Amino acid sequence: MDLTTYLQVTAEEVTQLLHSYYGSPDTTLSEAANHLLFSGGKRLRPVLFKLAAEAVSPGSSRGIMPAGLALEVTHCFTLIHDDIMDKDQFRRGNPTVHTKWDEPTGILAGDVLYARAFELISHTEAPDSAKVNAVLMLSQACVEICEGQQEDMSFEKRNDVSRDEYLSMVQKKTGVLYGAAAGIGVLCAGGSAAEVAALSTYGNSIGAAFQIQDDIIDLMIPSDKSGKDQASDIREGKQTLLAIYARERGLDLSSYRRSLKPSEIQDLIALLSKHNVIADVQQEAEDLISTGIDSLSILTDSHEKELLIELAHYFIRRSS
Amino acid sequence: MDLTTYLQVTAEEVTQLLHSYYGSPDTTLSEAANHLLFSGGKRLRPVLFKLAAEAVSPGSSRGIMPAGLALEVTHCFTLIHDDIMDKDQFRRGNPTVHTKWDEPTGILAGDVLYARAFELISHTEAPDSAKVNAVLMLSQACVEICEGQQEDMSFEKRNDVSRDEYLSMVQKKTGVLYGAAAGIGVLCAGGSAAEVAALSTYGNSIGAAFQIQDDIIDLMIPSDKSGKDQASDIREGKQTLLAIYARERGLDLSSYRRSLKPSEIQDLIALLSKHNVIADVQQEAEDLISTGIDSLSILTDSHEKELLIELAHYFIRRSS
Repeated sequence: MDLTTYLQVTAEEVTQLLHSYYGSPDTTLSEAANHLLFSGGKRLRPVLFKLAAEAVSPGSSRGIMPAGLALEVTHCFTLIHDDIMDKDQFRRGNPTVHTKWDEPTGILAGDVLYARAFELISHTEAPDSAKVNAVLMLSQACVEICEGQQEDMSFEKRNDVSRDEYLSMVQKKTGVLYGAAAGIGVLCAGGSAAEVAALSTYGNSIGAAFQIQDDIIDLMIPSDKSGKDQASDIREGKQTLLAIYARERGLDLSSYRRSLKPSEIQDLIALLSKHNVIADVQQEAEDLISTGIDSLSILTDSHEKELLIELAHYFIRRSS
Repeated sequence: MDLTTYLQVTAEEVTQLLHSYYGSPDTTLSEAANHLLFSGGKRLRPVLFKLAAEAVSPGSSRGIMPAGLALEVTHCFTLIHDDIMDKDQFRRGNPTVHTKWDEPTGILAGDVLYARAFELISHTEAPDSAKVNAVLMLSQACVEICEGQQEDMSFEKRNDVSRDEYLSMVQKKTGVLYGAAAGIGVLCAGGSAAEVAALSTYGNSIGAAFQIQDDIIDLMIPSDKSGKDQASDIREGKQTLLAIYARERGLDLSSYRRSLKPSEIQDLIALLSKHNVIADVQQEAEDLISTGIDSLSILTDSHEKELLIELAHYFIRRSS
């Protein structure tokens, strides 16, 4: 099965499994908790979970998929709370939970998903010791995600964020949950501590690269292709790695903090290209991907290992 | 040791243990997460946890106290999020987290405590099977607490809440976490499934009674004794059991939805007493306490069992 098919098939499997658990909401709050959970999404964290599990122990993923769902459910909880904090009205083309209902319901819907995540781990068919470690890994990941979100918000008030601060923030905000997905997959499949650590590093690294690619997509890809507003980060003065590199090279992007015509966006891209900003940021993402792929050397060769390598490349080749 | 001393000593023990885990916050977010956690509080959930554990297995509580802390940490997380939803500015005489910092920090501080709760369970010195069950019990309790809070908020928009709806709401909002505290204590101490179930019932019942007693305190106890604003529930038109019983007996309390002089509060108390509202609400609380105490019959006699019985009575005899 090629990666595209694998992504598609696994996303459908995950959605069906989530339906089997939560498909019949009986309260307004369950409906609100389901709203984002069943609004599409690539289900990349369960994909990582499953590939990592199958790579260390072929055939292992079936009974442990509840723990894979836990990662998706955790992801949704963080998005719902982030949308409240960032006052975002739409996600995946739908109104956000706090917009469709209200802020209290948004807070509670996120809190319900948070609980479901840990409940799902306890329902996993894995040794109890693995489940306890999975709870530990997931809870520690959640603390880091919160710290990452806090740092991200604090960066909005600053204009001196360094490359290292940015990379640490995306590691926490995006990397660790991918790391937990791959690591918990290995753990539940009975992999060794070294394999858990290696696959966590893999997930962490490609997850951080994923976020950097998001920043690149925001600048480079026209809205009709990406589904997002082109150059919105620049307009909002966000401290992305692109903005940080530009500032460090003496480029003042503050004049772009307004509505931009397509031709102006092209001028900006040309300016940043001339100073190697885009190429160097792409290199950062590629270096993270290399780190991730290197850590897969602990695995014996398998189709799943190949897919993990392809997935890493896909994380920075996608345009939406 | 009498109950008063036991409550005091255990509260201090819990605070010290929490300090050993979280006493050195290294980020703004950790500080915000600690704000309510270290602002006093009676630590009643860890008290229940410890007494239940010791009652089934003397000497068992030492290594399992992290799971006891998990209940207190969960309680704090729910209070921080509730305060945002209810727009409350003060708690325990201090500014609430979202008031001292801001709403995003409040949401994240609650989310950090939520993660810490599950992390604490994984650090408990108990068999892995007990820890997995504890994770399940805590996560299910959290879902119910969220549902209870949602119901409580929805009641504010209604004037036809029934006794059964109210009791179901307080069971979820307050009862289940006390139930989880006692149940998880038994679980981690190696008690039987029947003991876990019985002590969960005990905690659930006395927890619901605790909330009813809070409503009675609000009406009956002068501010200088309770530390709370007397008759604030009546002023705000809250659907407490007192208000529900009054309505069902044809009493219209809407004229009291304004600032009340002490003499007017006394008139109101006299009116409600005349119609047996207060006595009947007290009886509801006493019935719950009896249910709780009855379920302790599974335990052999011990000093801890005596304290559990005394604690149940204390829950509805306190005036603050």
